[in-house]
Amino acid sequence: MNKLNQEHTIAVCPGSFDPVTYGHLDVIQRASQVFEKVIVAVLKNSSKTPLFSIQERKQLLEQVTEHLPNVEVDSFDDLLINYMSERNARVIVKGLRAVSDFEYELQMAALNRKMNSDIETFFMMASSQYSYLSSSIVKQIAQFHGPVNDLVPEVVEQALRQKFGTR
Amino acid sequence: MNKLNQEHTIAVCPGSFDPVTYGHLDVIQRASQVFEKVIVAVLKNSSKTPLFSIQERKQLLEQVTEHLPNVEVDSFDDLLINYMSERNARVIVKGLRAVSDFEYELQMAALNRKMNSDIETFFMMASSQYSYLSSSIVKQIAQFHGPVNDLVPEVVEQALRQKFGTR
Amino acid sequence: MNKLNQEHTIAVCPGSFDPVTYGHLDVIQRASQVFEKVIVAVLKNSSKTPLFSIQERKQLLEQVTEHLPNVEVDSFDDLLINYMSERNARVIVKGLRAVSDFEYELQMAALNRKMNSDIETFFMMASSQYSYLSSSIVKQIAQFHGPVNDLVPEVVEQALRQKFGTR
Amino acid sequence: MNKLNQEHTIAVCPGSFDPVTYGHLDVIQRASQVFEKVIVAVLKNSSKTPLFSIQERKQLLEQVTEHLPNVEVDSFDDLLINYMSERNARVIVKGLRAVSDFEYELQMAALNRKMNSDIETFFMMASSQYSYLSSSIVKQIAQFHGPVNDLVPEVVEQALRQKFGTR
Amino acid sequence: MNKLNQEHTIAVCPGSFDPVTYGHLDVIQRASQVFEKVIVAVLKNSSKTPLFSIQERKQLLEQVTEHLPNVEVDSFDDLLINYMSERNARVIVKGLRAVSDFEYELQMAALNRKMNSDIETFFMMASSQYSYLSSSIVKQIAQFHGPVNDLVPEVVEQALRQKFGTR
Amino acid sequence: MNKLNQEHTIAVCPGSFDPVTYGHLDVIQRASQVFEKVIVAVLKNSSKTPLFSIQERKQLLEQVTEHLPNVEVDSFDDLLINYMSERNARVIVKGLRAVSDFEYELQMAALNRKMNSDIETFFMMASSQYSYLSSSIVKQIAQFHGPVNDLVPEVVEQALRQKFGTR
Repeated sequence: MNKLNQEHTIAVCPGSFDPVTYGHLDVIQRASQVFEKVIVAVLKNSSKTPLFSIQERKQLLEQVTEHLPNVEVDSFDDLLINYMSERNARVIVKGLRAVSDFEYELQMAALNRKMNSDIETFFMMASSQYSYLSSSIVKQIAQFHGPVNDLVPEVVEQALRQKFGTR
Repeated sequence: MNKLNQEHTIAVCPGSFDPVTYGHLDVIQRASQVFEKVIVAVLKNSSKTPLFSIQERKQLLEQVTEHLPNVEVDSFDDLLINYMSERNARVIVKGLRAVSDFEYELQMAALNRKMNSDIETFFMMASSQYSYLSSSIVKQIAQFHGPVNDLVPEVVEQALRQKFGTR
Repeated sequence: MNKLNQEHTIAVCPGSFDPVTYGHLDVIQRASQVFEKVIVAVLKNSSKTPLFSIQERKQLLEQVTEHLPNVEVDSFDDLLINYMSERNARVIVKGLRAVSDFEYELQMAALNRKMNSDIETFFMMASSQYSYLSSSIVKQIAQFHGPVNDLVPEVVEQALRQKFGTR
Repeated sequence: MNKLNQEHTIAVCPGSFDPVTYGHLDVIQRASQVFEKVIVAVLKNSSKTPLFSIQERKQLLEQVTEHLPNVEVDSFDDLLINYMSERNARVIVKGLRAVSDFEYELQMAALNRKMNSDIETFFMMASSQYSYLSSSIVKQIAQFHGPVNDLVPEVVEQALRQKFGTR
Repeated sequence: MNKLNQEHTIAVCPGSFDPVTYGHLDVIQRASQVFEKVIVAVLKNSSKTPLFSIQERKQLLEQVTEHLPNVEVDSFDDLLINYMSERNARVIVKGLRAVSDFEYELQMAALNRKMNSDIETFFMMASSQYSYLSSSIVKQIAQFHGPVNDLVPEVVEQALRQKFGTR
Repeated sequence: MNKLNQEHTIAVCPGSFDPVTYGHLDVIQRASQVFEKVIVAVLKNSSKTPLFSIQERKQLLEQVTEHLPNVEVDSFDDLLINYMSERNARVIVKGLRAVSDFEYELQMAALNRKMNSDIETFFMMASSQYSYLSSSIVKQIAQFHGPVNDLVPEVVEQALRQKFGTR
């Protein structure tokens, strides 16, 4: 195995993870079986108003991925390609759900390759049972105290309950 | 690196390749920089009437990938998941171009995972300059003796000229 | 007719209706010809800034559906599936216009079924003459005092004129 | 309940059903819980070469729906709207899977309404676990003696085995 | 007006027109109000089995466009870009209906520009009442002697009746 | 050339242009080769918070189009169809990139034609190298001091640097 390939075996799963869902976890787990190391990287996006702080989001991710020894949780506040270089990673892994995802993600992948042609983005299909799942839909349901136990791991469910209270 | 990951570093690029285009070659080359071995696997699909025989298609693929030492050209006449098992490979790599691609390819990826949950499909975005490119469009142009030099490697151009003659 | 089917003949048309358009009205009318009772349910969505209050939206809906005896106008501030249970309804009716609609609506329908498998969502195609129509586009035009008489019933046109004034 | 609504409670599920899959069955079952009577209508489409004859397709449908007392299996060789009139039915129920489905089905629904404005088409979302499933994909797998037991009922599996033999 | 623009005012509407529908006619008419000359160009596509011969298709087009003095009907058996050069035309006008159209047409437009950067393709949106309309759907309905009078001009309706007979 | 066509040869390219990208410029340039006059019209949209003021956006557009003698830069604060009438223009030219664009733009084109049937919208495909490009993505990259020199003309790059500072 040459140096080139070795670097590539570090994959980065970027996202907001506000909060992490079973859909995210499915992609992270599957990526962790293909790549030697997977870095789950929480984007510090100043323009949106998140429900969970960066620290809370990282902590939830660490709790739900602790059974995966080759997964690391981190955060970044930069262009993704700059963060990739810092971490010596060249593969981005993203889950795909729907047509609208597809368009935006392909745009970003094209742009990232234009800015750094060494960066490669791999898309994984969300498992069909999670194809309708997103962090924002989870928050909508939790806000009304609806059932989210099939959508997020238990620690996330508890964290949501703390944010929105119980009825 | 554990046994699990080692198996995964063999990737299969399945397709008809009738004939191989610069779009296919772009995906094969990029995959060969991430995975230790890439098997380009020509599907023997009895139901369609191809322009090039399996032998011709394999030969063209071998010629245009000979600068890539970790790429092997093969053919198969079976379910893709069975072929994957035979070759001890667990990663499928597919290029994505458009919405219609996306739907069908996601269907196939879901089905392949259902039949064998060890199989993982990674989608790579076609480079923007090849996003309009397909084997059937190349054949349409070549049939009218139109210019295909920006669309396929030179050996494929010559092979097309032999099939359709010169004006 | 058994008890099961009887319950199902109550259909709920949920939405923001800010304000109701001819596109909404078309779906409501067509649904009222298939189901014994149709409840048009205005969602109290605290996160958006609506143009019309819940009371105004309900009143406009009541005025434009008063010729439909089996249509009732209501509002709700809960998960849709909870509201459905309260009203003893098991069928959701939604109009579909475009691809982006489709993706989001299918997500919601899948999620609603996951949370309550008795809930069924039926999608109706918007009539082609209303396929470009949405409340937000109506508001954009009304804001510039453009013609909305082909897009919304007369009482809605008047209500928009009161909000935006006359030039 | 007035005469108008009573007629509407007969729903027609049209299709090729070559052969019926768990995806079709899911839609038929869910429709049978909403409408008083569901007619599964096999289209005699002379232009395609089916794997199963009309008689075989009807028999398989009858076997897999025999636990649903309000479901009838029939076939037709006419415009769907003419068949609807003959059967005194005014509601078409169709399952939706993907974007390409969506476009074609909306076209057909618009056209059917243009030809007969009393005809209403309701679309149901395919359950997520069947969103990748189609008769043609089942046949592709069965042709290679692949596993179809999660995709079609047992009698259909046996019928496929008879068509394609065992390896 | 310089020489450059003058050439551009000839627009070509290419297609199969098997047969021409009100959807095609809508695009041709609207194009004829913008460009000085519109050439409706029937593609001789040897690979498909058309219902109407090239001569029949041209004759129907001539009949339905005879009120448009700046519209000419022609046919071609070549790459579209070669035909454009022959006719000294640089603008292609195409109607767009649905997502699947969109993808294919954009592919062709990109390819035509790649082969000849002087060629420009303009897409016009099909009028909403024709957004579901295609030649193949018209033929499907006519085959069952269904009503096509809202879909095609009267001469086309008669031609279809001659092909399929009367019931 | 009759009066009708003469009016049509004025085309309007409306947009936010916050700021102009190479993607916009590509469409403007190509439109300027087909139509006698192209008016690039900056929409004063009060509801969004732009990065650049109307004056700044107009100035940047003027600088990057100054080599195109038949291109004029203007701004408007009205319905597009009203602005078109004022300017005696009847053709709108828009670039198309992705599916989501497509849906929204077709909605607007249908609505504009409904409000004024003389208005015609022509869509041009974005060149493939710019198909991933948008003003908002440019701003995202510039905010992190990433490379935008392949995405916007030099004067725009400088203007972005003034807004976001240098690292």
